[in-house]
Amino acid sequence: MTLVQVSSEAAASTAPQQLYLDDLHVGQRFTSGAHRLDESQIKAFARQFDPQPFHTDEHAAERTFFKALAASGWHTAAITMRLNVESGPPLAGGFVGAAGELSWSAPTRPGDSMLRAKSSKSRRRARDPIAAR
Amino acid sequence: MTLVQVSSEAAASTAPQQLYLDDLHVGQRFTSGAHRLDESQIKAFARQFDPQPFHTDEHAAERTFFKALAASGWHTAAITMRLNVESGPPLAGGFVGAAGELSWSAPTRPGDSMLRAKSSKSRRRARDPIAAR
Repeated sequence: MTLVQVSSEAAASTAPQQLYLDDLHVGQRFTSGAHRLDESQIKAFARQFDPQPFHTDEHAAERTFFKALAASGWHTAAITMRLNVESGPPLAGGFVGAAGELSWSAPTRPGDSMLRAKSSKSRRRARDPIAAR
Repeated sequence: MTLVQVSSEAAASTAPQQLYLDDLHVGQRFTSGAHRLDESQIKAFARQFDPQPFHTDEHAAERTFFKALAASGWHTAAITMRLNVESGPPLAGGFVGAAGELSWSAPTRPGDSMLRAKSSKSRRRARDPIAAR
């Protein structure tokens, strides 16, 4: 199983081993596997973490902003993390972040498939790594 | 049960009813109830969405950046959403966002309690509401 799809040039050397900062270069692209969301996953997550009618009930959702059942944005964020971990770049030390920006450009509906396409835009060492307490 | 704590001035008029944009003012503060995280919640979320050793195994976590078991940042984000929905300001139409910034200033450990303190910093109508498809 190939853990990560990288450019053909880099594939031979990086696919099986962990990637360190020095192994990444600007413009490098990674594409994860796909995850298909269904109604039961959407409702189960929402009942636990985002119990609003547009995420928990397809009928009630019709009378809301979303017009139909839609996944919680935190659900799609969490799935994105799983795609990163399972089939994203195999980063040494794991996927750890101290901050980030999110945007949800369109609702995710039952039956939609998600995948994570990622490219390196800049490369620098963090100046203030998260303090482990 | 009071769903939301607002300034005493506003409490009488806003506590039981839904809040619209015109009901919010800059500087208004809301504080949610609290949620206590434990080891089993941390591991259950991580197994499903962020299966990395520092989130799933307290022994393996000792040899990682986090030094001990820590909750996934996406887990704490999701709990924050639940605190918003259940005991945050009762926003008319619900909590819906198209974008946001996140930061995790310190790891969340088993036994830590979370609550959501929120204050209105600016108030404006969205120019480009998320397109419902």
